[in-house]
Amino acid sequence: MTQHADLTRYLQAYILEHIPLARTMQLRVTHYDGMQLEMSAPLAPNINDKQCAFGGSLASLMTLASWGLIDLNLRERGIACDIYVGDSYVCYREPVYGELRASARHADPGDFPVFVETLSQRGKARIAVNCAVAGENGEAATLESGFVAMPR
Amino acid sequence: MTQHADLTRYLQAYILEHIPLARTMQLRVTHYDGMQLEMSAPLAPNINDKQCAFGGSLASLMTLASWGLIDLNLRERGIACDIYVGDSYVCYREPVYGELRASARHADPGDFPVFVETLSQRGKARIAVNCAVAGENGEAATLESGFVAMPR
Repeated sequence: MTQHADLTRYLQAYILEHIPLARTMQLRVTHYDGMQLEMSAPLAPNINDKQCAFGGSLASLMTLASWGLIDLNLRERGIACDIYVGDSYVCYREPVYGELRASARHADPGDFPVFVETLSQRGKARIAVNCAVAGENGEAATLESGFVAMPR
Repeated sequence: MTQHADLTRYLQAYILEHIPLARTMQLRVTHYDGMQLEMSAPLAPNINDKQCAFGGSLASLMTLASWGLIDLNLRERGIACDIYVGDSYVCYREPVYGELRASARHADPGDFPVFVETLSQRGKARIAVNCAVAGENGEAATLESGFVAMPR
């Protein structure tokens, strides 16, 4: 529990230090429990010309939440890796008129042990993450991403 | 020619006025000729922890270039529409260590007359746009998007 809270704080500080766009977005890491990672950002700095969330902000927040999930999962296990997003499919379902809240999970929790095993055996592994931004009627936006990790 | 240059300036001013994230990105609209729209942004405000372009910046720039192409295409023809991104597939092929330069084109130039016809007949139409960010060895990132337009 404490470890998860520490990791949450670490990730937020790391992202805000290294990614200027995340500072403008006023990104916050709000939850991490090992299985799920949540980030949020206020609407004002992420707004577009239609007074709702800019698609680029939604995509950025979901990409960072997904990346952060894998980063903290590996960090918890003491595995130092560089993690890159390979590809993503983004679906914009409804406009977001309030705070942007993204929640990322493994596409299949059973993939993670295989991912860690492949990393140690081949020095490179790929994993899929699903992320969604909450809307008034379910999911306002979703992102399905593939990430590649390589030990540092 | 002058009309295209005017539209280029209009689009840049509009985006910078209404999308705070684009101001942080220091986005510029560098070219529009009716068929193709180009945008750029310097690396510094769009950097990540690996000293290359943040994936969210690449996705945002490509989404705006694609959106801008449709917006200016319609504006040139005097058609006032709201245009929304529906979905996108992003592929990150290689890191970008310099200026981000995105170029958007219709997925199929033959689609545009059908799109305009559908808009006027049904009050809603969909069109696909392809966008790429230049890399050292071809395309560093690509985005295939579907946009929905509705007359205002």
